Amino acid sequence: MPPSPIRKLVPYAEAARKKGIKVYQLNIGQPDIETPVPILDAVRHADIKVLEYSHSAGNESYRRKLVEYYKRVGIDVSYDQILITTGGSEAIMFGFFTCLNPGDEVIIPEPFYANYNGFACAAGVKVIPVTSHIENGFALPPIKEFENKISAKTKAILVCSPNNPTGYLYSMEEMEALKELCLKYNLYLFSDEAYREFSYHGKSISALQLKGLEQNVLLMDTISKRYSACGARLGALVTKNKNVYDAAMKFAQARLSPPGLAQIMGEAAVDLPEHYFDAPKTEYQARRDLLVSRLNKMPGVFCPNPGGAFYAIAKLPIDDCDKFCQWLLEKFTFNNQTVMLAPATGFYGTAGLGKNEVRLAYVLNLDAINAAMDCLEKALEEYPGKVIDGKHLNVIAN
Amino acid sequence: MPPSPIRKLVPYAEAARKKGIKVYQLNIGQPDIETPVPILDAVRHADIKVLEYSHSAGNESYRRKLVEYYKRVGIDVSYDQILITTGGSEAIMFGFFTCLNPGDEVIIPEPFYANYNGFACAAGVKVIPVTSHIENGFALPPIKEFENKISAKTKAILVCSPNNPTGYLYSMEEMEALKELCLKYNLYLFSDEAYREFSYHGKSISALQLKGLEQNVLLMDTISKRYSACGARLGALVTKNKNVYDAAMKFAQARLSPPGLAQIMGEAAVDLPEHYFDAPKTEYQARRDLLVSRLNKMPGVFCPNPGGAFYAIAKLPIDDCDKFCQWLLEKFTFNNQTVMLAPATGFYGTAGLGKNEVRLAYVLNLDAINAAMDCLEKALEEYPGKVIDGKHLNVIAN
Repeated sequence: MPPSPIRKLVPYAEAARKKGIKVYQLNIGQPDIETPVPILDAVRHADIKVLEYSHSAGNESYRRKLVEYYKRVGIDVSYDQILITTGGSEAIMFGFFTCLNPGDEVIIPEPFYANYNGFACAAGVKVIPVTSHIENGFALPPIKEFENKISAKTKAILVCSPNNPTGYLYSMEEMEALKELCLKYNLYLFSDEAYREFSYHGKSISALQLKGLEQNVLLMDTISKRYSACGARLGALVTKNKNVYDAAMKFAQARLSPPGLAQIMGEAAVDLPEHYFDAPKTEYQARRDLLVSRLNKMPGVFCPNPGGAFYAIAKLPIDDCDKFCQWLLEKFTFNNQTVMLAPATGFYGTAGLGKNEVRLAYVLNLDAINAAMDCLEKALEEYPGKVIDGKHLNVIAN
Repeated sequence: MPPSPIRKLVPYAEAARKKGIKVYQLNIGQPDIETPVPILDAVRHADIKVLEYSHSAGNESYRRKLVEYYKRVGIDVSYDQILITTGGSEAIMFGFFTCLNPGDEVIIPEPFYANYNGFACAAGVKVIPVTSHIENGFALPPIKEFENKISAKTKAILVCSPNNPTGYLYSMEEMEALKELCLKYNLYLFSDEAYREFSYHGKSISALQLKGLEQNVLLMDTISKRYSACGARLGALVTKNKNVYDAAMKFAQARLSPPGLAQIMGEAAVDLPEHYFDAPKTEYQARRDLLVSRLNKMPGVFCPNPGGAFYAIAKLPIDDCDKFCQWLLEKFTFNNQTVMLAPATGFYGTAGLGKNEVRLAYVLNLDAINAAMDCLEKALEEYPGKVIDGKHLNVIAN
């Protein structure tokens, strides 16, 4: 079981903070956007006498409410196709436990959300990466490369769009290509859609909108990023495949129920006005623009322009991103400040890839991003393991 | 993956309710005791701007608070030996994932909490049951029987005291015998102590109080029953074994963090006055006395007197508890009421055991227990699959 690449630097950050250093945390997808007051108020004003177990699939009232939400975003499901989970994490875990036996394989385009490894490890499932590349902004690799990796043990393909960690937003053509592949080989399509609302170039496409693939799709969802409510730990597994749903329910029953107070929040969230997302989306887009532009102005740095979510991966002129990120926290300061980044190596399944890449989560306001970029710029000048590679110098991505 | 024996009857209960039948739910450990107002108020008055991920091990402030709690109950631990989990369920799951590889074995006295099967299944671990018997109130089976089941694959013994589903409270002698066995074969001792506060004959002994076994013990804990807060989904894995703790942390990091609002409740709970437990404990004890006495007065019924928790297992003069429990919901009414029980078969690992036993959770008030016992008494008269077995007639347990 590998440690979380996002969290393994935490002790160094804690040590830096204890020395009085201001650490800009761009390492983790913890938004600074405020949790909407109405959904917190729903908990504050809830009339609770006994905080009971809910239904193992989540409160029926919440599931019915979510049907409205999904309808609004163009996904047609019924309440008994929704299983409320403890964060998106549990939805992913239930997917692995339900659709794959130990020894089975799931194909995931890399770089990918590192915790997929943890869930795969828990389920005894093998992750087979197909490499996407920074040069074309981490677009879906050619379908032929997926096909080459399919074996008798392959049971599923897992995608995430808008993507964590790359920010890449899959096009309809890419989603359709995945559909054809899943139909051809009868594979499940696991679709992590945590960042649905945050897409900046056109709309995010849900796997459940792919006609004819309904029985193969498991949608993994969460309120964490959507409503800036990561700490609530509330997600959902959505599937029209009744056998899969029933099997997942057994795992759901074993852990009794998803968090109760969070479900009150989730239910209230569906009643937020439709324009709720306008402000955070505009804010994230402005941050993205600033971050990407600042990065690409740094000598030797290349950062493609992400189409969604609130992550970007940048290539840096460094020897080793793990060393660099630790050095930023242990050895470097600029005006008594530094920046915390996630080494990209942890997002690749193939050893050796991503050594000169880092993931940046633009979850801080514009001033903080500017200050963090000042730190990074200075750090790249001072870092002893600097590698001069002029290839991408001053190239601005799409 | 087996379905939950406690929850599989839910659709029949829902159907009965839709017909207007009052169903007394003695099937599930969902207490009716009110959640303490101060711990709900702590959430209501919490000043939250962004509901962020907490530390993967839980908020440090909560872990430090729990150190106080454990000290009060005679358990000496430090905050970095406590890992906050999503309910006791996750603590058990982390224990399995951390200490056992797929194919390894865990020995559990049966009948046992059925969801252990689910977690074992998820972890690819084999549960090896050692049978305890209703005749002696489900006391710890002779250590020799454990020893007979130990193989090269045995990595742990799991016990729960006070016990769910039997209510049995292990004595110091029994706990010491388990300690010697674990030391002799270098086994982990998983100790589910969810019901610590509810012991009616002397004090519950924690596995972490067993001198010399500290490195082998994983304590699985939860606030669900203690503070009538099942829906919060908040528990803890406590261990002094640093390697185990560090390995469990990797699984904790993969799922990011335990529920945030619940941690506010948990922290406030430690500040409840010491006498808080007096009222629920007195109430549960009165219910137990009523339930056990009513059961043992029914012809052909035998129910040992449980020493703790809020469960009892009773032997009934019936052919098949699964059929009987379903029949109670589908076919039977008395004054337009019926009772929902948990078939004991689901709590045994050995097929065929427990066929004439049911588990009753005394989580309803005295009037409701009386009414439920009226139903059961009548049902045992009417049930077509009745089996006359005079052996235990009118025997009152210890």
